Amino acid sequence: MKSVNISSIDFKKGGGLVPVVVQEASTKSVLMVAYANEEALRETLRTGYAHYWSRSRGSLWKKGETSGHVQKVKRVLVDCDADTLLYVVSQRGYACHEMKKSCFHNRLPRSPLEAKV
Amino acid sequence: MKSVNISSIDFKKGGGLVPVVVQEASTKSVLMVAYANEEALRETLRTGYAHYWSRSRGSLWKKGETSGHVQKVKRVLVDCDADTLLYVVSQRGYACHEMKKSCFHNRLPRSPLEAKV
Repeated sequence: MKSVNISSIDFKKGGGLVPVVVQEASTKSVLMVAYANEEALRETLRTGYAHYWSRSRGSLWKKGETSGHVQKVKRVLVDCDADTLLYVVSQRGYACHEMKKSCFHNRLPRSPLEAKV
Repeated sequence: MKSVNISSIDFKKGGGLVPVVVQEASTKSVLMVAYANEEALRETLRTGYAHYWSRSRGSLWKKGETSGHVQKVKRVLVDCDADTLLYVVSQRGYACHEMKKSCFHNRLPRSPLEAKV
């Protein structure tokens, strides 16, 4: 595991934003994907709580600010081409606004034959 | 876990593409993030091997087609707002072109105090 700096993150490719995969530290479950700009990432590193850029609201967003379902960040990992982040977190309550642990609670059938029609 | 159809995936939001988080089924490690258009997703479901849309090459891409480092797809999950996918896979060889199991092999220090200067 190599240590890198914020300046190495490629925010330009995504118009100022990078996707952030969020993984629960204890279960290793993938909780959600959100987006961060440089400010959101700096706030995350400074406070130890996950911050994102809300694309729908156009504003900085501390996850759980109103619901209390905050994410305490244990590690921030960066992928090999520095255009995607992975927050490893301890999730309080639910990651999903539908009151589920993970946002990934739907599945696609593997083949048309599996599909419920 | 609710079963959904391809037609429910929101490809429009990302200009025809959705981000795909890729997780190793056995270790639950997050391996990489790539992008899929509808064709790549259909090829994934049809063949059982991970396909993506290469943004740099502008073409459909079967992961491991040349390297042999294919991803056998066990499940395809969809998030609550249907704009992000999660492929749960069995990875042959390495997910990362740098011959590492996961592309997330760099870390950011949690605070400026942790940074190596």
